[in-house]
Amino acid sequence: MTQKVILLGATGSIGLQTADVIREHRELFELTAFSAGRNMEETRKLIEEFKPQAVCVLGEQDAADLRSHYPDLDVLAGQTGLNEIAVYDADVLVSAVTGSIGLEPTLAAIRLGRKIALANKETLVTAGHLVMREARKYGAVILPVDSEHSALFQALNGEKREQATKLILTASGGSFRDRTRNELQGVTVKEALNHPNWSMGAKITIDSATMANKGLEVIEAHVLFDFPYDDIEVLLHRESIIHSMVEFRDTGVMAQLGTPDMRVPIQYALTFPDRLPRRNAARLDLAAIGKLNFQEMDYDRYRALQLAFDAGRAGGTMTTVYNAANEEAVAQFLNERIDFLQIEEIISRAMAAHTPAAAPGLEEILEVDANTRKSVRNMLK
Amino acid sequence: MTQKVILLGATGSIGLQTADVIREHRELFELTAFSAGRNMEETRKLIEEFKPQAVCVLGEQDAADLRSHYPDLDVLAGQTGLNEIAVYDADVLVSAVTGSIGLEPTLAAIRLGRKIALANKETLVTAGHLVMREARKYGAVILPVDSEHSALFQALNGEKREQATKLILTASGGSFRDRTRNELQGVTVKEALNHPNWSMGAKITIDSATMANKGLEVIEAHVLFDFPYDDIEVLLHRESIIHSMVEFRDTGVMAQLGTPDMRVPIQYALTFPDRLPRRNAARLDLAAIGKLNFQEMDYDRYRALQLAFDAGRAGGTMTTVYNAANEEAVAQFLNERIDFLQIEEIISRAMAAHTPAAAPGLEEILEVDANTRKSVRNMLK
Repeated sequence: MTQKVILLGATGSIGLQTADVIREHRELFELTAFSAGRNMEETRKLIEEFKPQAVCVLGEQDAADLRSHYPDLDVLAGQTGLNEIAVYDADVLVSAVTGSIGLEPTLAAIRLGRKIALANKETLVTAGHLVMREARKYGAVILPVDSEHSALFQALNGEKREQATKLILTASGGSFRDRTRNELQGVTVKEALNHPNWSMGAKITIDSATMANKGLEVIEAHVLFDFPYDDIEVLLHRESIIHSMVEFRDTGVMAQLGTPDMRVPIQYALTFPDRLPRRNAARLDLAAIGKLNFQEMDYDRYRALQLAFDAGRAGGTMTTVYNAANEEAVAQFLNERIDFLQIEEIISRAMAAHTPAAAPGLEEILEVDANTRKSVRNMLK
Repeated sequence: MTQKVILLGATGSIGLQTADVIREHRELFELTAFSAGRNMEETRKLIEEFKPQAVCVLGEQDAADLRSHYPDLDVLAGQTGLNEIAVYDADVLVSAVTGSIGLEPTLAAIRLGRKIALANKETLVTAGHLVMREARKYGAVILPVDSEHSALFQALNGEKREQATKLILTASGGSFRDRTRNELQGVTVKEALNHPNWSMGAKITIDSATMANKGLEVIEAHVLFDFPYDDIEVLLHRESIIHSMVEFRDTGVMAQLGTPDMRVPIQYALTFPDRLPRRNAARLDLAAIGKLNFQEMDYDRYRALQLAFDAGRAGGTMTTVYNAANEEAVAQFLNERIDFLQIEEIISRAMAAHTPAAAPGLEEILEVDANTRKSVRNMLK
């Protein structure tokens, strides 16, 4: 029996790797529908290979072009199209769009009780309480796709939540881990995009360098696994081999390890509670690696990570501000309009200017998100 | 509700640490009966602290002394006593005697469908097929106490056996890990007893130095988890922090980690599927440790380990010969009658002289065991 998959963000890094997993197990998965942004070349390739029922793209003109090329295909466009395509007939929604545009379609699929393979961090960071509440209400299972959260999920599998005492997220340290704070002055976009271990999209690679990515993961872990921030620790681990760990009250620690390859957690999310073979995948060879390194996190060095803990502890809409300010700041950095160190400065200023509202609704969240972006743009005028 | 515990081998290293665990959770455990060898001082202490219903000691004279001191206590003696005490009323049997004398009482408790916390390697090594068959037949659950097998058990918990592809046992390398084979000529008993990571009994510390201990663990893992020898790997890991790992077919690896402390796996075996707090126990601090090292196993350097794989693959009574020859050789080394390197030489000669019988019964096993010991003693005349 095949699982019908809807894939949001198909032409991004996680999206293409999800397509790899589906390709490897064509007997198990059917790509029913997907969304893409503006990459029409990849979109056409995916349409021709997987012959989905529906596709959503960002631009109206691109949508019109696709309609004339593929008359049998349902072609949708924009945020409205994204919300619509998420509720097409399917067994699982893979939410791999980047940014807060993933929130509404994911909530829509949750309300159908669908299984959600969640790679979109912002969904949990900006609206975690809503998402988890709706998931419980509609019986939707949320499976994390991030390697860290997948590792935590695997380490908690078969265990009792209340007997776990600490989540230990590992962090590679990103592209600038061997530089001091002073050496971060004036680094270029190109330098920042050079991640040592993982091949990922631009936004997440910058987030990895500032450690805002780990910050988002800390908030996500808090929401997904219901751990207080005091029981979440970040550990520097250069090699990204231990993907994360859970400490239990008997002092035992369970960890998930592997060579860095996002297709492993993507596949796990699609096949849980089963594990399927991964053909041609690199097996872990610890003897060849030789050493795994660990180092205490320096929160002064990685200010964006400290700010994530601060935002998480403040709660309510503060994590929305953290995320929106970061997204806007990274966009500006990628456009070479601000310096690298200004990213955290901008997050910090946006948070200082905000008074969080507790347990906000979706509209309030979207409003805070929009206002934060606007105020960040105003800062830079 | 308290669990009634029978503890075989109470005054040994694992036995005393089991007493620690019971002491820490007096509300949960009751030490109903225990066996000891010749250490009367510890035996009396344990009697006075835990007030058991029955005790078994090795010597008849010691038994008589105890009877006169503790008129209300059932006092048994010798192998017969050990077999009897194992079937006293209880919920769990902790089998922590060293050597093949643990086999019969463990089988007796298995036939009562008891939960068995198994620290006695020889039971599985010499009679694994019998033990597992009887455990299935009588519904006895066998929980490993060895840190490695406990780690494997924990890593497999919640997973499907057929989706696991490899067991990876870690090995510290023992007290001589930084010496070449040539540098092992003429090492003293005192040097061999100086284990870098674990505080254990004399026999197991020597086995750790020769890697016969890891060899016994490989055979034990084969029996306990039903993995072919080709899918069991031994990895040198100096720090003994990762206690062992399981690789799955999706290339993911699950590991259990912790500071080396036998009370953690002992407690886990007693409390599974729960994990209880361990008071005053050292939590794992990977940042403080800094580095974990891994190295490929050198089977020429550690010949006793290679011989264990050979014995396991030969099957039948060959693992009994491996174990008995090793036990006898280690006893001779501890008595300073042979050199360190002669231990593996003796195992090798005993194996070469033996034609294994497949699926042997208990009597045949005990006979092969006795004959092997005799022939080893004859070699040394």
